[in-house]
Amino acid sequence: MSHNTFGHLFRVTTFGESHGPMIGGVVDGCPPGVALDPATIQGFMDRRRPGQSRHTTQRREPDTVRLVSGVLPGDDGALTTTGTPIAIVIENVDQRSKDYSKIADRYRPGHADYTYDVKYGLRDVAGGGRSSARETAVRVAAGAVARAVLSNVVIRAALVELGGDAAEARDWEHTACNDFFCPDAAAAERWAERLDEVRRAGSSVGAVVEVEAHGVPAGWGAPIYGKLDQDLAAAMMSINAVKGVEVGDGFAAARLTGEDNADEMTMGSDGPTFTSNRAGGVLGGISTGAPIVVRFAVKPTSSIRTPRRSVTRSGEEVDVSTTGRHDPCVGIRAVPVGEAMMAIVLADHYLRDRGQTGGHH
Amino acid sequence: MSHNTFGHLFRVTTFGESHGPMIGGVVDGCPPGVALDPATIQGFMDRRRPGQSRHTTQRREPDTVRLVSGVLPGDDGALTTTGTPIAIVIENVDQRSKDYSKIADRYRPGHADYTYDVKYGLRDVAGGGRSSARETAVRVAAGAVARAVLSNVVIRAALVELGGDAAEARDWEHTACNDFFCPDAAAAERWAERLDEVRRAGSSVGAVVEVEAHGVPAGWGAPIYGKLDQDLAAAMMSINAVKGVEVGDGFAAARLTGEDNADEMTMGSDGPTFTSNRAGGVLGGISTGAPIVVRFAVKPTSSIRTPRRSVTRSGEEVDVSTTGRHDPCVGIRAVPVGEAMMAIVLADHYLRDRGQTGGHH
Amino acid sequence: MSHNTFGHLFRVTTFGESHGPMIGGVVDGCPPGVALDPATIQGFMDRRRPGQSRHTTQRREPDTVRLVSGVLPGDDGALTTTGTPIAIVIENVDQRSKDYSKIADRYRPGHADYTYDVKYGLRDVAGGGRSSARETAVRVAAGAVARAVLSNVVIRAALVELGGDAAEARDWEHTACNDFFCPDAAAAERWAERLDEVRRAGSSVGAVVEVEAHGVPAGWGAPIYGKLDQDLAAAMMSINAVKGVEVGDGFAAARLTGEDNADEMTMGSDGPTFTSNRAGGVLGGISTGAPIVVRFAVKPTSSIRTPRRSVTRSGEEVDVSTTGRHDPCVGIRAVPVGEAMMAIVLADHYLRDRGQTGGHH
Amino acid sequence: MSHNTFGHLFRVTTFGESHGPMIGGVVDGCPPGVALDPATIQGFMDRRRPGQSRHTTQRREPDTVRLVSGVLPGDDGALTTTGTPIAIVIENVDQRSKDYSKIADRYRPGHADYTYDVKYGLRDVAGGGRSSARETAVRVAAGAVARAVLSNVVIRAALVELGGDAAEARDWEHTACNDFFCPDAAAAERWAERLDEVRRAGSSVGAVVEVEAHGVPAGWGAPIYGKLDQDLAAAMMSINAVKGVEVGDGFAAARLTGEDNADEMTMGSDGPTFTSNRAGGVLGGISTGAPIVVRFAVKPTSSIRTPRRSVTRSGEEVDVSTTGRHDPCVGIRAVPVGEAMMAIVLADHYLRDRGQTGGHH
Repeated sequence: MSHNTFGHLFRVTTFGESHGPMIGGVVDGCPPGVALDPATIQGFMDRRRPGQSRHTTQRREPDTVRLVSGVLPGDDGALTTTGTPIAIVIENVDQRSKDYSKIADRYRPGHADYTYDVKYGLRDVAGGGRSSARETAVRVAAGAVARAVLSNVVIRAALVELGGDAAEARDWEHTACNDFFCPDAAAAERWAERLDEVRRAGSSVGAVVEVEAHGVPAGWGAPIYGKLDQDLAAAMMSINAVKGVEVGDGFAAARLTGEDNADEMTMGSDGPTFTSNRAGGVLGGISTGAPIVVRFAVKPTSSIRTPRRSVTRSGEEVDVSTTGRHDPCVGIRAVPVGEAMMAIVLADHYLRDRGQTGGHH
Repeated sequence: MSHNTFGHLFRVTTFGESHGPMIGGVVDGCPPGVALDPATIQGFMDRRRPGQSRHTTQRREPDTVRLVSGVLPGDDGALTTTGTPIAIVIENVDQRSKDYSKIADRYRPGHADYTYDVKYGLRDVAGGGRSSARETAVRVAAGAVARAVLSNVVIRAALVELGGDAAEARDWEHTACNDFFCPDAAAAERWAERLDEVRRAGSSVGAVVEVEAHGVPAGWGAPIYGKLDQDLAAAMMSINAVKGVEVGDGFAAARLTGEDNADEMTMGSDGPTFTSNRAGGVLGGISTGAPIVVRFAVKPTSSIRTPRRSVTRSGEEVDVSTTGRHDPCVGIRAVPVGEAMMAIVLADHYLRDRGQTGGHH
Repeated sequence: MSHNTFGHLFRVTTFGESHGPMIGGVVDGCPPGVALDPATIQGFMDRRRPGQSRHTTQRREPDTVRLVSGVLPGDDGALTTTGTPIAIVIENVDQRSKDYSKIADRYRPGHADYTYDVKYGLRDVAGGGRSSARETAVRVAAGAVARAVLSNVVIRAALVELGGDAAEARDWEHTACNDFFCPDAAAAERWAERLDEVRRAGSSVGAVVEVEAHGVPAGWGAPIYGKLDQDLAAAMMSINAVKGVEVGDGFAAARLTGEDNADEMTMGSDGPTFTSNRAGGVLGGISTGAPIVVRFAVKPTSSIRTPRRSVTRSGEEVDVSTTGRHDPCVGIRAVPVGEAMMAIVLADHYLRDRGQTGGHH
Repeated sequence: MSHNTFGHLFRVTTFGESHGPMIGGVVDGCPPGVALDPATIQGFMDRRRPGQSRHTTQRREPDTVRLVSGVLPGDDGALTTTGTPIAIVIENVDQRSKDYSKIADRYRPGHADYTYDVKYGLRDVAGGGRSSARETAVRVAAGAVARAVLSNVVIRAALVELGGDAAEARDWEHTACNDFFCPDAAAAERWAERLDEVRRAGSSVGAVVEVEAHGVPAGWGAPIYGKLDQDLAAAMMSINAVKGVEVGDGFAAARLTGEDNADEMTMGSDGPTFTSNRAGGVLGGISTGAPIVVRFAVKPTSSIRTPRRSVTRSGEEVDVSTTGRHDPCVGIRAVPVGEAMMAIVLADHYLRDRGQTGGHH
């Protein structure tokens, strides 16, 4: 878990800027003999891809993934992992020779321009440099590999709040039927209207994403600094624009009494089971067998049309506004990214648990 | 950042159970030549120590810290770090030969009993084993070392919500004047009354802790998987009973528009400065120079008097209730622990930044 | 330092097989603002490239390196590092559709065929899969980046023994004048003759490589498990076909008395200096300021024409011989690889030392 | 594998100086349910303990090991691991208030005095500080835990060369019958005489240690930077005074032809087997199923009576000699340390392999 690597046994390293020839990454530690279906992987990519509705940026990024190592082709077009590093390569195709000269010298408020410049001594303006959301495409590809490792685990995510307007229902089938991964038909309609206004105003709104994993057995994770929820928190907070993470009832748990908060246990047909899941599937850092539930907050993007006060590299005070294509709600595209990070964390803990205990839970 | 180690260059490893002869840890990677004052370290320990008011558990833990390696004594009683591992040892003195036979076979709801048993195949009942809050004493000691490394950084924390009742004021001086580290005199009075009721009822309540760091220069942290806020999220989520973490405006940022959320910049006397701090001092994973602000949610402890349904190891359904000493609000003692984890993360990022860039920001 | 990653702060991850479309890697943690000259990098690649004399394999690998991220182009064609991951990509161009069916089922003696199959459950025959020496091309590219980080350090290597015939002289200029990186003109002549015989016989010989680094200041490295020589040993042993590593006098030091072995110190113009360098520039795991000297042993390649007894996957006993292009002495091409690994270890320790101590030695 | 931590899944962190109250360490990642016999552990400690014959230093170090966490006592005095960190504590008892003032200002040639001072800015003279061989006691204790994890592996080591005089025989039983762990009765007699002379002369000699592991299945280790032999090289080189490491035929392999070097395979009763073991049980970084064989060179200790030229901290040229107790051949006590490091590396790779592949080889 170094600067550009996430995970311990199932390790994902990413590289690339949006203005270079390609972005990509390396998945190291993947078990051998895992079947990967290129079409399935591309399907996950397509969910994250921008420009699929009027509600996301109109940038064109086909995001065709190539796995250039660590896999062997099978008879049926499927790939099998070899246990060696799986390199992911995604070409950058829509690199318009945009004119960045206007912002080359000024820090965009709410962006990482200023902090990058202080740290690295440079303004890598084109397309946001390394801080571009484009990096998350590699996470989705790596997450697709992680899902294949986790054959019995089902991971799904939804946008459960947009601009402060929460979805009530959790109709998971419905997430595929609207442009927002929204699990509530009525909310999706409200959001479409709202986002049209926001986009026309050149403004932006925040959102909350909920990610669930079903089928995780009890026993993954570890106490103290190997907590499953600790790594989930790190994973979600590492996504661009995320400002908060919670597990199970999260912040709401701080408003409960001990009587209301503790999930009771009974004997089910397959052993002990919980009558509720306020814990979000994790106790003492270790999975309980109940669904893992994580939510994270995405701030509104700072690329807005309204001018905002800022300064230049040379210390002049200026107004900065963003023109051109942008996402009125970056939270939408964070949904498949949240799923990917959940998968990556779980694959890592699956292997870590198997390493230490043999995994026979 | 493995199972019992946190950090990369400033690394903290802890060990010990509450029923063993001692708990402790190793701080590796500390710079040489750092002055440590034993009395200051002990002062931090005393803030976390239970039994100091009627509002925390009446367990007696003197928590006297010994640094048994990695330091050289100076003329004035002060210690100087040598750059080699600093071992922390804290004896366990109040190990009453308590009768755990009643719970030896049953899983306490909301505790890690069940998950530990599934993972490790054992019931380490005495005092909660490794999942005991006692482990956090070592974090506070390690945090005291980290603070000494961060000579220009001031870290402080407060309990800002208890049982759903929020503190309005942020009167930091006042945190030393009540039993709750509460920054609001009126709230502290309400909380005292509330907690007396809770304690008498054998119940428990949750809380929210806010931690701030002042004096962190712009430039610590890194993009992608080396984000300062990612490591802060992991650090806070690794504390017992924590279920949520947020940075700056956190979840509230998801309810703002881009216009309201982005902090504007102006030129101050020392260079660029921010007119607000909704970002909580971190943009793109890198510190902005503004105060680092983190909040985390602590669930109510599951040790309550009211019987709750559970099961035994052999699969019998039973009722479980907790008798004896317990904390009606574990969030109180989490305040100094949150400060310690903030210090540990910052010391690590200080060294990591100095390693990669030279640190001349 | 995980399966396919080497280093802590200056981290190199590699990927790729010789039969895939490309090999490559990611250099993470490189300081920003380092000038990289593409021609210089390519120059290091060309030294390792096969087919440059009759003494190495006649495979054609142009090994053109592309840095596809982490660098910004300057005015003069030079690149500047940005502090973000530097991705290295090298296309595979000479992938003859060779017929591997003859060996697909049989384990070549002395190769990793058998151990890979046991571990990963597959025979990745084409070109040796991940164990191909081709992976070392990426190390040379990463080593070139490391050299740029180490602006005041000069690294050089030589083949000092071939087939048991040792070079006497250390005429470093001469290493550029023969096909062996041999620092001894007389030895180079003997080796040329010897290797012609070996090649004609379809046989192979081993070799010893010596690597030196000049200009490393005293103070890099750390005691116990952060020893500079420990990481050098790991680095060299990680190179294909290496079976032994020694620092300074190495195994010969075990035949000395304490009087003869300890390097004496005197005062030089720049401070303390050593009158000899039996320690090879490292004491207690920390650099002394004297040149770092490492030697490693390369076994003869097992790709030989003479049939050797082996078994097939299905357990049949067979004879196996290698036909086609091969290196009669893989040690020759290990010379630039040894330099690269020295550079990578030193760059990592430079940053690690700067992280912990500030680096002001 | 950071400064004071070795290993990835089975991780050993050590702390302590010889002049502090205790030394110790933490073994993290040990599987739960492993039976540890305190007497067996102490037996390994006693083999390393000094003062057991006239041939090692007469310092008295009872080296009584306490495991203060991570274990549960069983009915029969045996301990069982819980899966949480096992803390090892060894009190320092023979801390004579020795007068170090004579060497406080001067650098002992061949010691780490100078490099420590340059790096850390201090002279931690008493007992050698962190670089004292005393730290290796903790390795032996951790190695004893590792052996218990590796239930089917037998690890043994011998001193196979002393002062340039090699043992011919490999009579492993005999290693328990002399003061040198020498596997050759005739050599042991010669060495006893030789070492008496060396001791009387206040001199010292180097040695070579050979370590073997039997029962390691094929499939542990990994290619590239996860090589089993790479980690063994790092492990052995991390031991005090070690200057060289080799696997299997090691440096001698560099003098062989490909025909002679490659081990042939036949079908044995349990599957493929090797007719020789020049590879030392490792091919392509992965174990072959044959015994793992490693040798390492130990330099003569620099603590000798003959004065040697050196300098002081203030730059004065002086002569330095060592008086008092010392080891005429530190290689002897390195034998059990080599076994311990072999065990630690193997336990780590056992768990790492099980994590990635499931371990069903």
